[in-house]
Amino acid sequence: MIIVLKHGSGEAEIEEITTRLKEEGFKVHLSQGVEKTIIGAVGDRTRLQSLDLEALPWVEKVVPILAPYKLVSREFQPVDTVIRIGPHTIGGDEVHMMAGPCAVESRSQLLETAHAVKVAGATFLRGGAFKPRTSPYSFQGLEEEGLRYLAEAREQTGLLVITEVVDVRDVKLVAEYADILQIGARNMQNFFLLKEVAKVNKPVMLKRGPSATLEEWMMAAEYLMDGGNYNVMFCERGIRTFETYTRNTLDLSMVPALHALSHLPVIVDPSHGTGRWQLVQPMAKAALAAGADGLIVEVHPQPEKAVSDGKQSLTPPNFKLMMQELSRLSSALDRPLKGVVG
Amino acid sequence: MIIVLKHGSGEAEIEEITTRLKEEGFKVHLSQGVEKTIIGAVGDRTRLQSLDLEALPWVEKVVPILAPYKLVSREFQPVDTVIRIGPHTIGGDEVHMMAGPCAVESRSQLLETAHAVKVAGATFLRGGAFKPRTSPYSFQGLEEEGLRYLAEAREQTGLLVITEVVDVRDVKLVAEYADILQIGARNMQNFFLLKEVAKVNKPVMLKRGPSATLEEWMMAAEYLMDGGNYNVMFCERGIRTFETYTRNTLDLSMVPALHALSHLPVIVDPSHGTGRWQLVQPMAKAALAAGADGLIVEVHPQPEKAVSDGKQSLTPPNFKLMMQELSRLSSALDRPLKGVVG
Amino acid sequence: MIIVLKHGSGEAEIEEITTRLKEEGFKVHLSQGVEKTIIGAVGDRTRLQSLDLEALPWVEKVVPILAPYKLVSREFQPVDTVIRIGPHTIGGDEVHMMAGPCAVESRSQLLETAHAVKVAGATFLRGGAFKPRTSPYSFQGLEEEGLRYLAEAREQTGLLVITEVVDVRDVKLVAEYADILQIGARNMQNFFLLKEVAKVNKPVMLKRGPSATLEEWMMAAEYLMDGGNYNVMFCERGIRTFETYTRNTLDLSMVPALHALSHLPVIVDPSHGTGRWQLVQPMAKAALAAGADGLIVEVHPQPEKAVSDGKQSLTPPNFKLMMQELSRLSSALDRPLKGVVG
Amino acid sequence: MIIVLKHGSGEAEIEEITTRLKEEGFKVHLSQGVEKTIIGAVGDRTRLQSLDLEALPWVEKVVPILAPYKLVSREFQPVDTVIRIGPHTIGGDEVHMMAGPCAVESRSQLLETAHAVKVAGATFLRGGAFKPRTSPYSFQGLEEEGLRYLAEAREQTGLLVITEVVDVRDVKLVAEYADILQIGARNMQNFFLLKEVAKVNKPVMLKRGPSATLEEWMMAAEYLMDGGNYNVMFCERGIRTFETYTRNTLDLSMVPALHALSHLPVIVDPSHGTGRWQLVQPMAKAALAAGADGLIVEVHPQPEKAVSDGKQSLTPPNFKLMMQELSRLSSALDRPLKGVVG
Repeated sequence: MIIVLKHGSGEAEIEEITTRLKEEGFKVHLSQGVEKTIIGAVGDRTRLQSLDLEALPWVEKVVPILAPYKLVSREFQPVDTVIRIGPHTIGGDEVHMMAGPCAVESRSQLLETAHAVKVAGATFLRGGAFKPRTSPYSFQGLEEEGLRYLAEAREQTGLLVITEVVDVRDVKLVAEYADILQIGARNMQNFFLLKEVAKVNKPVMLKRGPSATLEEWMMAAEYLMDGGNYNVMFCERGIRTFETYTRNTLDLSMVPALHALSHLPVIVDPSHGTGRWQLVQPMAKAALAAGADGLIVEVHPQPEKAVSDGKQSLTPPNFKLMMQELSRLSSALDRPLKGVVG
Repeated sequence: MIIVLKHGSGEAEIEEITTRLKEEGFKVHLSQGVEKTIIGAVGDRTRLQSLDLEALPWVEKVVPILAPYKLVSREFQPVDTVIRIGPHTIGGDEVHMMAGPCAVESRSQLLETAHAVKVAGATFLRGGAFKPRTSPYSFQGLEEEGLRYLAEAREQTGLLVITEVVDVRDVKLVAEYADILQIGARNMQNFFLLKEVAKVNKPVMLKRGPSATLEEWMMAAEYLMDGGNYNVMFCERGIRTFETYTRNTLDLSMVPALHALSHLPVIVDPSHGTGRWQLVQPMAKAALAAGADGLIVEVHPQPEKAVSDGKQSLTPPNFKLMMQELSRLSSALDRPLKGVVG
Repeated sequence: MIIVLKHGSGEAEIEEITTRLKEEGFKVHLSQGVEKTIIGAVGDRTRLQSLDLEALPWVEKVVPILAPYKLVSREFQPVDTVIRIGPHTIGGDEVHMMAGPCAVESRSQLLETAHAVKVAGATFLRGGAFKPRTSPYSFQGLEEEGLRYLAEAREQTGLLVITEVVDVRDVKLVAEYADILQIGARNMQNFFLLKEVAKVNKPVMLKRGPSATLEEWMMAAEYLMDGGNYNVMFCERGIRTFETYTRNTLDLSMVPALHALSHLPVIVDPSHGTGRWQLVQPMAKAALAAGADGLIVEVHPQPEKAVSDGKQSLTPPNFKLMMQELSRLSSALDRPLKGVVG
Repeated sequence: MIIVLKHGSGEAEIEEITTRLKEEGFKVHLSQGVEKTIIGAVGDRTRLQSLDLEALPWVEKVVPILAPYKLVSREFQPVDTVIRIGPHTIGGDEVHMMAGPCAVESRSQLLETAHAVKVAGATFLRGGAFKPRTSPYSFQGLEEEGLRYLAEAREQTGLLVITEVVDVRDVKLVAEYADILQIGARNMQNFFLLKEVAKVNKPVMLKRGPSATLEEWMMAAEYLMDGGNYNVMFCERGIRTFETYTRNTLDLSMVPALHALSHLPVIVDPSHGTGRWQLVQPMAKAALAAGADGLIVEVHPQPEKAVSDGKQSLTPPNFKLMMQELSRLSSALDRPLKGVVG
């Protein structure tokens, strides 16, 4: 940590800070330039969070040198985390397609979609059973009934299930049905939920909050790992910007950035990332080319009758076309798309 | 709702949409221009949410005409909501100052602060007992012990208590101690929490999410009112933008915008809104001038030793100076600052 | 254009608006719902810009139905624009790599780089001769001397030259040396510069402004086409967001979005788009997969000695490695990378 | 400047960097922690811009300690700059109102507006003669004819004139007519224009670019001062964010931030800052309370017939009402609104 003092700070101010830093167990280096006095402090990274030296009136700024995360960093674990889920691995050579409707609306809707995406090459089935929505007047999900349909679809198709948990009180229930627990974008910093999910022995997919920086996102994953759950994957799903043509701005640069800074796998969601089904295929291809370890995509048999997100859902025929394109691309990238019969 | 069809759409496409709209109970008006065909649909506002006509390939865009919120709108209730809390009213002529530490750290820290802000003219005491933090390695709050100290401070000073509820499982507990329940920025769209808080008979202050639009924020308040809690106030606390000099960008234009569109009171938080204590006083003055019904400000006896947000906390002497400035300003604005002895 | 009137607007208000619209040559349709009165107006798209009906106190909002651009739209020209430049075409099947230093620093630096990128498969040489910089204390470019070095490099290597014009007074000068004129991000809405460049018979690459929406960007291209220059290509180079790990947020969704809305080619700049050379290769691959018609990338023989943008410049060996990856990828995408010997 | 090396950097890497820093005239301090090696470098601030050490693969990050601006900083000049223009001073005790139409449309429109704002208490007349617009199909300004009308209005009313210069070729012409030259938001980083304006002996108002950080804005002012023009004032006019209810997000925290970091005056433009005339009055009041040295506001006799920005223009009667409110407020703030007869 580097502390820059304001022009004109004297001995008394320097003394006060260095004393306080030493009390907290930091080693202190002093550097007095012509224009600025700079104090370097070396010590326990986890105590850095609690110090708030910028509150002192004569401190101009405090510059952290070490990243605030540890367990998620590649420095902590140089080799890639490979998550095993049934017959699949995420984070290794395989690339996976997770597909299905935004919300589980009915047994028939879900089973029809599940069979369609399975045939086209998906390996995971997505679908929301709990759907807190922007409007209180919108459909709010089938809840446990939806989870049962997901389990039935798994039995019929062999697809594994990824579904979102939104309420701390439902973590155990959802974990009974799901193969991967999804933490949604709005809950990325719902730290109580993160703590509960950390206790469960299930892989977790952590979506990026719409206004979360890379560092905040990695800190949310640190919560999960610090709580004991090491099977964490990130999911880039777009951030909120001034551009309104797309629902969000899909920030694919996060894929190589996370691969550089962390050992955890990275999934991309081009459906929420664009909000327009016409853009899903090109952005899915771009995500694979950027190095994504998997994709999660919305598919609905009749998008215009979907209770949510129809605008960004592919029809089964369009999904099949996309899978053919992706399969060819993934071969050229030497990362086979698991589930597609070559 | 206006539906614009793509260039080249024919009778079959128009027929399909109009049939579907009529099935859902909408009245339909057709307007065929030279370049575009436009369909107007009039009907139940709450069913608009469920229609996803943009999923149809020949629909160019759908433009909603009615706002998606109802209960929070000034059209629904033309006169201002005035919330009565003990001897105080929020949303009427009075302006209130809510002040205190970011987190309740100890009994002595809280009581010292409470007395100081009371003397200077605050009417509400703020302080967090549950503090989920960006880092799992940071202080996480005193929990119920913190709530008890808040109650003790209320008894000693007469200040009423505003404190945040962060977990659905704690709503009843926090409501036993608090006079106003605060919903934090990260939880603005935690709809399960909104539903639980809606059931409690306590006023609620709803902070704006860091990337929430005005409309999304009003929809979150709609959840509270739809759930039965009509004593809702908004709190502008800054949004996330590209500017990093300030912690957030305090969007004061929301104060007059909300007063135009809604009947609910608006509070402003210049501490989180700027992240720098030096900017708190000028932005507090600006907030009052923009028409805020109250302010919420962080005060700490020793900001540089605060476990959180020290950088944005005022010392008691600086808080006192600010209150003198605000008192004079509020007189010129004909909205007395309750609690200040003139 | 749809005009929504405020609740409570009466006959007089409706009369005033319809009269004014008719005076301007619009056909008017009136629709009076229970809650809102809506007026539809059909007429000359270019006069829509001048009407400012939202200034009327009883108008709630005005919703444009037609896009404000015309010549750049795919509705105006359904087939792709293919720009011929010497032996190359941009916007057809070929994909092109434009590479070179941020700034032309010296004859030897430029020639060394030009030969290196030529060997690796680039077809265009980039390099700035005029470099207005954020700081007045930074290097500002070699000006015409730099243009002469670019011409010399073209002669020696056969690479065509793309370079930026920043001052209206230099348009003719730069056009004498360049094969493509680049309009930089900061000048996207420098309409005087756009007008001058429109008069020159040279292809233009129009970079997206860091806070420009898709529509504003297309309007800037409309200026060029309206001024008589039809050989326009877009260049996505990232937008400014809250994320600071990358210099900008590269918005690859603009590639398929522009291909849907416009007939003009789209180039991607992953160097400025990320600001980190480690991210250039993965994002270059992603750009091709998203459908880009070309890439523009910064290469410098000694990035750490570059006068600008060293942090985002590839070394020649890294550039060569990237070209090998891109070549393989472009084959799988059926769009050969021109210049690479297979 | 602090240079943080990547984990695992050895003697050779440290040697290479320190040698290079010493060659450039920097003094070097080395600090080797357990996890990171840190190099401190002290030297000429203007050469810092040219070093690009982050291009080295073993450098993790470079943290500047000194601000890149000098002349605009309060450290360089501790006392406020007070700009004298005719009988007025900007940056001292007086607060000024600059008012008028967005564009000069005709002699009668301008003169009518000028007389109206003069009577209400404005001291400067604003009005654009050159109007480059987002659409090539919109009105582009009366050019020199418009400047002549501004001069005539000055003669009739005594109001001084502020008007925008947009083209380097027009700087001298505009300077002949104007009392203050305005540099518009889109031109904040048009460095050629800044250099030309710096040569003219007229005060300059520098608007903030819609995506400019505080530091970039101050660097643009540094260009003007470095070029010899010391009579510079900033103008906050809102930044581009995700919020679309307002045209821009007016960032009033910049007023006290600039007053802390710089000695130059700060003006606020609530018209562009909100884009809605209904929000102009409350935000004008907020700007004064935040410490603004002046306001610039759009007024039009018939906003709904304005060729531009009618939606954000006040009518003369509304302007007069606002001036009465502002006058009372400015008295309570001890900064008299010049031009208002008390």
